[in-house]
Amino acid sequence: MRAAVYQAAGLVVVEEVPDATLGSATDAVVRVLRSCICGSDLWAYRGIIQRTPGSRLGHEFIGIVESVGDEVTSVSVGDLVVAPFQWSDNTCPACRDGLQTSCVNGGTFGAPGTDGGQGEAVRVPQADGTLVAVPGGLAEVGEGLLPALLGLTDIVATGLHGAVLAGVGAGSTVAVIGDGAVGLCAVLGARNILGAERVILMSSHPDRTAVGRIFGATDLITTRGAEGVAAVRELTDGLGVRHVVEAVGTPSSWEMAIGMARDGASIGAVGVPHTMPQLPLFEPFIHHLRISLGIAPGRRYLPDLISRVTAGTLDPSPVFDATLPLARVAEGYAAMSARQSIKVMLA
Amino acid sequence: MRAAVYQAAGLVVVEEVPDATLGSATDAVVRVLRSCICGSDLWAYRGIIQRTPGSRLGHEFIGIVESVGDEVTSVSVGDLVVAPFQWSDNTCPACRDGLQTSCVNGGTFGAPGTDGGQGEAVRVPQADGTLVAVPGGLAEVGEGLLPALLGLTDIVATGLHGAVLAGVGAGSTVAVIGDGAVGLCAVLGARNILGAERVILMSSHPDRTAVGRIFGATDLITTRGAEGVAAVRELTDGLGVRHVVEAVGTPSSWEMAIGMARDGASIGAVGVPHTMPQLPLFEPFIHHLRISLGIAPGRRYLPDLISRVTAGTLDPSPVFDATLPLARVAEGYAAMSARQSIKVMLA
Repeated sequence: MRAAVYQAAGLVVVEEVPDATLGSATDAVVRVLRSCICGSDLWAYRGIIQRTPGSRLGHEFIGIVESVGDEVTSVSVGDLVVAPFQWSDNTCPACRDGLQTSCVNGGTFGAPGTDGGQGEAVRVPQADGTLVAVPGGLAEVGEGLLPALLGLTDIVATGLHGAVLAGVGAGSTVAVIGDGAVGLCAVLGARNILGAERVILMSSHPDRTAVGRIFGATDLITTRGAEGVAAVRELTDGLGVRHVVEAVGTPSSWEMAIGMARDGASIGAVGVPHTMPQLPLFEPFIHHLRISLGIAPGRRYLPDLISRVTAGTLDPSPVFDATLPLARVAEGYAAMSARQSIKVMLA
Repeated sequence: MRAAVYQAAGLVVVEEVPDATLGSATDAVVRVLRSCICGSDLWAYRGIIQRTPGSRLGHEFIGIVESVGDEVTSVSVGDLVVAPFQWSDNTCPACRDGLQTSCVNGGTFGAPGTDGGQGEAVRVPQADGTLVAVPGGLAEVGEGLLPALLGLTDIVATGLHGAVLAGVGAGSTVAVIGDGAVGLCAVLGARNILGAERVILMSSHPDRTAVGRIFGATDLITTRGAEGVAAVRELTDGLGVRHVVEAVGTPSSWEMAIGMARDGASIGAVGVPHTMPQLPLFEPFIHHLRISLGIAPGRRYLPDLISRVTAGTLDPSPVFDATLPLARVAEGYAAMSARQSIKVMLA
């Protein structure tokens, strides 16, 4: 089969690789229908973090179950399935706490030795605890919903999780820092799922603000840094917001998050802090902040999110502003790295 | 009148100072019945932080209202009152959120230009929003309850706040890092007020563990660092605790807090992070931690705490293991700094 392979910073190629096969009785093999490139894939592509040369790429995919191991009971050959970006057994103590990204038997698609989503097929470990079948399958759902379902594999769950960590609920006012796909999906999750009344999106890119508006952003702040913080405070009687989603993970985004937080506010942080190893602690202490962090346990949210998509009440698909065949995946990386594209779908 | 004055690190004296007087229509003057020395007073005493030479000392006191300004309505001359360690108007947005230590008109007793609790009398700004009268007054309450009431001015509220921030509730298992008065009161608050089932206190000092036992600690860990973390994990099926109170504020205490936290745990941090300016962020991110910080809004808790003390269901007084007259306050500082005393009462 063919799959995207990381060779070096800036260098992604599509190669012939061994076919995905069952390696254990709890595995499934999924033939990929749609996959995509993640903002987190760009960390290595830009040379900010190390990635093993030769490792596969991609952790977001949906597809059709092609084969299952002897112990797999929850999905069957032919099912249309959605995979979260990490596999999990869904039975260990962490999974039972709804923290499937802390699963003792978990792992991430695309890690060395595993298949990645950016390929023709994927071996899925812990298939019962990982995959969620879409009721009715492809025949009933239709190709038109595939982009929306693909969005659930990471970005919708991660954006929603940021809003959940930030304590967003019905009637909340929340600010979202980050206008990448996750930030935009935090807007969607806050408004569409959690019932926030006011969602302030920090973004100055017209293509991204347009998606932000579609997803329910009520206020757009186009400035950054101290100026952006001042603008948010002006919108909130000078007090700041009670809920902040931090969906970037850099020193400047954290500085904004803390700067715009009202005393007693909750910050939900889902931006991987690769360039933010240390958080200054005194300001959060003085201002009674609650800081909740984590890699979104996508599996926790998937069943609910799938039913919303198939019911037609949730549609994250506008975040995909470009579609390429797998063979041209390198162009997708280049476009996203240059911020010419929000998120590239492979189909 | 006479009051304790900070002169330099290690040097506290009792001097004749101007009498406390009403400076504003919203002030009250309180004649001090009992006051005490706080662990946080030791930061400057030990030379770790700067303090203005000549400034008054002490932010914990109870006493009798001696005079009130024209606009004061909630307390009257002769009332037995408890003051939280910071004054507040109790009407601003922060106060209405229960964050009186973020009050726009607030301040701390003992700050330059203010009276401190370690003196014969104190001018209390924002008296209506700050002081809480004890029903029945001294005549009904009696001198015997004064130590317990004194404990409410800071340490009980701060310890309880740490447990509240850590999300402790009925049936919780919580670990408390810090066996100073605040840590011990976190044990008391978690068990006596919030209904925790299991409270693990990290302490190796027999005098402190004895108080911890009285306050309801169910498990005592006498080791520190990685060894202490391993001991807590052993008590919790290797998973760690869901709730941690961080009542120290140093790099080593934070390292323990994060090390013993179960994935998804809440850390409630009330130790002032004077020596902990930066928090490593990656571990909390990987482990889904919720970190809530803050200077306890003592005023929020005072009415409830006072009624518990007068009802006889809450007694923090065992934390006071020494009593000195004001004239000998310097001995109290020396004893607490040398960890010969947990907390010194001035009477």
